[in-house]
Amino acid sequence: MSESDDRPTGSAQGAVSRRGFLGGAGGLAASGLAVGGIAGAAGGFAAGYGTPAPAAASAAEVAHPFYGSGHQAGIRTEPQRYTVFMSYDLTTSVARDVEVLLARWSAAIAQLAKGLTVGSVEPHRPDAVGVDSGEALDLGPEGLTVTIGFGPGLFDERYGLAARRPRHLAELPAMPSDQLQPALTGGDLSLQACADDPQVAYHAIRTLTRMAKGTATTRWTVTGFGRASAGPTQQTPRNLMGFKDGTRNIVDDADYERWVWAGSDDQPWMTGGSYLVARKIHIATETWDTDRISDQNAVVGRTKVEGAPLTGSREHDVPDFEARDASGQPVIPATSHVALAAHENNGGVKILRRGYNYTEGIDALGQIDAGLLFLAYMRDPQQFITLQTKLGRVDRLNEYIAHIGSAVFAVPPAARQGSYIGAELFRS
Amino acid sequence: MSESDDRPTGSAQGAVSRRGFLGGAGGLAASGLAVGGIAGAAGGFAAGYGTPAPAAASAAEVAHPFYGSGHQAGIRTEPQRYTVFMSYDLTTSVARDVEVLLARWSAAIAQLAKGLTVGSVEPHRPDAVGVDSGEALDLGPEGLTVTIGFGPGLFDERYGLAARRPRHLAELPAMPSDQLQPALTGGDLSLQACADDPQVAYHAIRTLTRMAKGTATTRWTVTGFGRASAGPTQQTPRNLMGFKDGTRNIVDDADYERWVWAGSDDQPWMTGGSYLVARKIHIATETWDTDRISDQNAVVGRTKVEGAPLTGSREHDVPDFEARDASGQPVIPATSHVALAAHENNGGVKILRRGYNYTEGIDALGQIDAGLLFLAYMRDPQQFITLQTKLGRVDRLNEYIAHIGSAVFAVPPAARQGSYIGAELFRS
Repeated sequence: MSESDDRPTGSAQGAVSRRGFLGGAGGLAASGLAVGGIAGAAGGFAAGYGTPAPAAASAAEVAHPFYGSGHQAGIRTEPQRYTVFMSYDLTTSVARDVEVLLARWSAAIAQLAKGLTVGSVEPHRPDAVGVDSGEALDLGPEGLTVTIGFGPGLFDERYGLAARRPRHLAELPAMPSDQLQPALTGGDLSLQACADDPQVAYHAIRTLTRMAKGTATTRWTVTGFGRASAGPTQQTPRNLMGFKDGTRNIVDDADYERWVWAGSDDQPWMTGGSYLVARKIHIATETWDTDRISDQNAVVGRTKVEGAPLTGSREHDVPDFEARDASGQPVIPATSHVALAAHENNGGVKILRRGYNYTEGIDALGQIDAGLLFLAYMRDPQQFITLQTKLGRVDRLNEYIAHIGSAVFAVPPAARQGSYIGAELFRS
Repeated sequence: MSESDDRPTGSAQGAVSRRGFLGGAGGLAASGLAVGGIAGAAGGFAAGYGTPAPAAASAAEVAHPFYGSGHQAGIRTEPQRYTVFMSYDLTTSVARDVEVLLARWSAAIAQLAKGLTVGSVEPHRPDAVGVDSGEALDLGPEGLTVTIGFGPGLFDERYGLAARRPRHLAELPAMPSDQLQPALTGGDLSLQACADDPQVAYHAIRTLTRMAKGTATTRWTVTGFGRASAGPTQQTPRNLMGFKDGTRNIVDDADYERWVWAGSDDQPWMTGGSYLVARKIHIATETWDTDRISDQNAVVGRTKVEGAPLTGSREHDVPDFEARDASGQPVIPATSHVALAAHENNGGVKILRRGYNYTEGIDALGQIDAGLLFLAYMRDPQQFITLQTKLGRVDRLNEYIAHIGSAVFAVPPAARQGSYIGAELFRS
């Protein structure tokens, strides 16, 4: 299966850039946001009207193709440095409105992923409104991916799609230690925009949100950062507890097939798809910072600087959950995060984590307000429920973290050229 | 005068990195945050205990020296891609506590600017608390600068420093169109951390805020981004209105001397210093996005894509405020932002702008909450007052923006090696 998310295109392969784009040159400019028909939307936007720029061998020029026959980009794609995640409520009661939005979003994302604008920034007709807000002009594609998700609400009584509901899509149950804030939960649609420049990721979400007007409204959002500087030997990034986060993540094809991509038991239109669980996890950094290092290491089950399991000396040493110390206690405490989350202790269950740190200034008490946007992909949200039910009950981390936001989405497969995300859902 | 902010040090010049640092190796580790005396703080932290890493020719390794005999870094320094700005209230009534904090901050900033930790992340004694929270381990200096400012409150009746108040330091007066939110105004101290990686800037502010415990508490903060991708031919960045922002900024030495650096009429201890005006400016992006392009261009006085004045064709063409159109009206409207702010129309007055875009999710109405963190340096805040009084009264931009946060600070000169920011204030 061709995977749209595994093949970044550098400038040498002909990527084009907003840097080479003349603002008023597009004949489709003014009509871009006003397109009413599905075919018009998909065809019109997909046509593109950027002018290829001279090749510049730069990380800014990395472009991930949007169209493909496999999975959406932004899941297996090497995590970019920034994300803007946005959840939406559908405000229409007409399924066709949703379909049109998905067609227009798809065509627009395909443009944005190439580093192009979506319509004209500065139309020739002076009484026209610019279709693209312009703040990403001069910036390259920056590895942008935008991944679309479908919440449970898309399959409720409103749209006649209940019979095609993804087999494993349902609101997450209440779990131990949940401290959810209703305003930070749920959503009928989601967009996960990731890029190596925050202005590019923001521009994508702003542009796509404008296009949703009349069909969907924003519900909750988190802006995240946190990858270590990109490079050929990218290291495991650190979360705001100062620990490496993502050491034992899914890497192998076999694990992707078994734990990430929707299975043959799912709806046919979900083939190549996945499920996204999004959690906004607040970290009490000021409390954490006062904890002694031996306790921090015991809470996590790893050493802070190296990231080694307490039974090893290097980050990628395999944890030995059977090892005992002189007094007969497990060297890696049974209530440590690593022990509770490890696949060895959960019937083999794994999930693909794609976390980003967030900071949101200071709270009402003047304390730094920060945490982790936990994004995880899996073939069945039950994988997360299994893990989090256990973690929420006894994880020693719970003294320092709080799950305050939550949502679950089915993530359809990629769109083929000329089509759009979810087309098979509406047509099947 | 040697300028500490004009000479970035690449790895070739011997910069060291947290990547080469062994967490528990420092003998000063546990005592770092507990230092009580001024000399001990400055000397102890400044000594450093990082291990130089093998040179890696990377932008991540750019380091700006903290110590110098001229101006603080972060003013004339080429703007980095990210900032965290934090304002603090002093909670102590003892001048010496403030002096100790400034000594400890200075020593810590000198370490951070080299890409080193401030104290140990993982102390050898298991019952010790890590001095450094660790999330910037594995990251280089990333061009970090932290610039310290003194608010008017430092010179009130509490500390006996009234006679040494910087000559031009006073709370800003109310100005036309102000929509200030009290929680986003003022402050006795400020830190402006700028870096090419957001985690490095965040880590600096988190670390310095921890050190302030018992002496100062956080008051208001903004996290910003917005530089175009760094490169040898860096372009003028765009704000979230999609326009280039900063085209006619101060560049020449003569303008720095005349408009930025404190003058001979100021307190002797302010020689080499400056003044910072910080404004948090909300932008009604969703309203702006519906404005026709001819109006946007007229509001700004420039074209959106190119950034040229309406009387020119290229960004750096000099605006001609006398030019008239066929009907006798000024080509650049007199109420456009460019016309109102231009030095030609303000008795020559210039300020050094150092703006960053900010996004803060969505507001209570579900609209994208975003704007500009306007940071400007000048020899006298009256320069800003002159400009903003005029802009606030008639600037056509006021329909789309709102000044919601505000503060003013005197910015002392750089600290010499072995000393700290503000030493001359307390000793003179």
